[in-house]
Amino acid sequence: MAKIALLGHGVVGTGVVNVLKNKAAQLEKLTGEQLELKYILVRHDYDVDYKEKFVTDFTTIETDEEIDIVVEAIGGTDPAYKYVKAALEQGKHVVTSNKELVAKHGCELMNIAKEKNVNLMFEGAVGGAIPVIHGVRNCLEANTVNSVAGILNGTTNYILTKMIEEKQSFDVALKRAQELGYAEADPSADVDGIDTCRKICILADIIFGNHILPENVHTEGIRNVRIEDVDTLKTVGGCIKLLGVAKRAADGKLFIMTAPHVVFNQGILFAATDVFNAAQLETDNAGTMAFYGRGAGSLPTASAVVNDIVECVKADGTIYPVWDDEKPEAVADYKSVPLQFYVATADGAEKVKETFGDVRIIAEGTETAFITEKMTQVRLETALDGLAVKSVLRVL
Amino acid sequence: MAKIALLGHGVVGTGVVNVLKNKAAQLEKLTGEQLELKYILVRHDYDVDYKEKFVTDFTTIETDEEIDIVVEAIGGTDPAYKYVKAALEQGKHVVTSNKELVAKHGCELMNIAKEKNVNLMFEGAVGGAIPVIHGVRNCLEANTVNSVAGILNGTTNYILTKMIEEKQSFDVALKRAQELGYAEADPSADVDGIDTCRKICILADIIFGNHILPENVHTEGIRNVRIEDVDTLKTVGGCIKLLGVAKRAADGKLFIMTAPHVVFNQGILFAATDVFNAAQLETDNAGTMAFYGRGAGSLPTASAVVNDIVECVKADGTIYPVWDDEKPEAVADYKSVPLQFYVATADGAEKVKETFGDVRIIAEGTETAFITEKMTQVRLETALDGLAVKSVLRVL
Repeated sequence: MAKIALLGHGVVGTGVVNVLKNKAAQLEKLTGEQLELKYILVRHDYDVDYKEKFVTDFTTIETDEEIDIVVEAIGGTDPAYKYVKAALEQGKHVVTSNKELVAKHGCELMNIAKEKNVNLMFEGAVGGAIPVIHGVRNCLEANTVNSVAGILNGTTNYILTKMIEEKQSFDVALKRAQELGYAEADPSADVDGIDTCRKICILADIIFGNHILPENVHTEGIRNVRIEDVDTLKTVGGCIKLLGVAKRAADGKLFIMTAPHVVFNQGILFAATDVFNAAQLETDNAGTMAFYGRGAGSLPTASAVVNDIVECVKADGTIYPVWDDEKPEAVADYKSVPLQFYVATADGAEKVKETFGDVRIIAEGTETAFITEKMTQVRLETALDGLAVKSVLRVL
Repeated sequence: MAKIALLGHGVVGTGVVNVLKNKAAQLEKLTGEQLELKYILVRHDYDVDYKEKFVTDFTTIETDEEIDIVVEAIGGTDPAYKYVKAALEQGKHVVTSNKELVAKHGCELMNIAKEKNVNLMFEGAVGGAIPVIHGVRNCLEANTVNSVAGILNGTTNYILTKMIEEKQSFDVALKRAQELGYAEADPSADVDGIDTCRKICILADIIFGNHILPENVHTEGIRNVRIEDVDTLKTVGGCIKLLGVAKRAADGKLFIMTAPHVVFNQGILFAATDVFNAAQLETDNAGTMAFYGRGAGSLPTASAVVNDIVECVKADGTIYPVWDDEKPEAVADYKSVPLQFYVATADGAEKVKETFGDVRIIAEGTETAFITEKMTQVRLETALDGLAVKSVLRVL
């Protein structure tokens, strides 16, 4: 028998309760143990048919030696950080889908887990149900991952999809997302790229082996994505996606960024629409590989959480290596890494060509839109100095 | 130290040699053991810089107690079946990318592996580098998989992509695929769906728990895919893909089939073009999930093979459950399961509507093309009896 305490009873928490219940027999068969949900930490009591599990004081959980696994589904870092740390220090496995917590404190918490010979697991923190963390850790043993690019936030992908497919403006699409419950009343964590940034940091931590703090990562959201650029790109088989990207730069530093990118009509990142998430990896032996699925939601996230619970139950001690502590100097200056850019300007094609030479013009008319050769942002900004720039986007 | 014997030195075999060499340090770090390739079974000697590993008699490998893992990269079933069986009976793990072998003898061989407390691993047999087998086995513990649909053959996907994107006929596209080495001189295993059928059988074995023999699965290839239908479908955002599909039918039987399907402009199966493979799963808690990547090639397949080697080295005994032996009566009659169909006919829309009612007409002109409601193939064939049918395709 493995005993579980759940912290939090919101969207993810109720999903975990449901999945543990609807898959009880299957989980027992797979692990050879009955998984018992003993406690659910809530702020105050209310009526559900399993309210006897409710506790309001974390100490009950922390001090109960029967509890093997603590599932953190509170979100944020206060009090989640304190609780997770305390649980690990008591030698309990912790499973969480809290990207803010892992992006900020993952390295420290995994070190505590390692000391206590238990695990901190967080598949649900990146890409919801998609097993990208498991995949990177277990399915690419014979590879070096050179880069990762992901659509890691369903809310912004929904908004961009509405802009692309229904020609809605950002404001209209955001309002619709809020009505459907995909976006919060204060949507900034999603639309300003903060959530995506946390997730790409976690993927980069695992893939490249150094803790990357979100505050050291250049992050742009989708508030300024213009419907004009969406339309222009559509004519050449391109679309705009909010991506987290990370790759090894030429100088060995890590290039990591969250920003809207132009993606052309090919492959999985282009095809992942609506609230779906996708992560694409470039590897040396396996080549391009991608994972796709539901990036959020009660049951999909709970699916990842419960899968992590199973890994903990089966685990004989700590399974995965801890990445190294952060070194801010290991992050490349994002303006110094050569990329292709999409630029729209009020100037004519003539003037664009004077500055950029024989560049690929993709639209002419009121505005001129073009795709540059690979260049650093430093060089781009100098080149754009005399032009009436309307928008600049990076090309994946 | 884990000692490995490789059977065969063709495309996959040389890939395995390369990956074991180029990732030696990483693999040692991951497994805690040095992986030594001790023997390579070849039919006759020739000059490579590791020719001291060549042996021409399988007995050398079978009787060497130092060999922990045998990698079968010969292909076909004779002598692969005999060698794999003998290796397992000697208590050696076997890793193979041989879909014919696993589709035919997987259940028997896994039972021998289980008796001997070793593993038969075959990630490379389905979807090349894509970790779909690992994913189904390890990342969906909290789910029931309701269906799987996959583009599992790169050659046919390349041919269909050329037909879709460059309006080439099947014959022209096949010839180009042969020139590029994607298709064999005798392309029938690929273009007639035989290879895809073996792979969907293996996925179905794992997901649904019963061995399914390829000869019990209705299989259609792409030789009769018409450029006219490709073009018609393009106008409504559809394309034709050769899919292996398997799902639980209403009566509890397994509906499994290999055939060209119409896929509409959404999701990963539509986006997987060229030689790429993709497998899409419908699950109850995680929802839709997909895996995408290189389905063939020396290094991608070797990536999967070597990942399996790592799992064997880390394994403490048999890891995965054996599926049950085949029950032909568990396979549903494919003509009795309701599906939507695409039909093109030389008759006019009037006549189509007389027979099918208010059906969705997607093209009128020389031919009328339409998408039916869900119906069984038995009912469809009766309905089509009076029409001048040009083609019929299933809609995913």
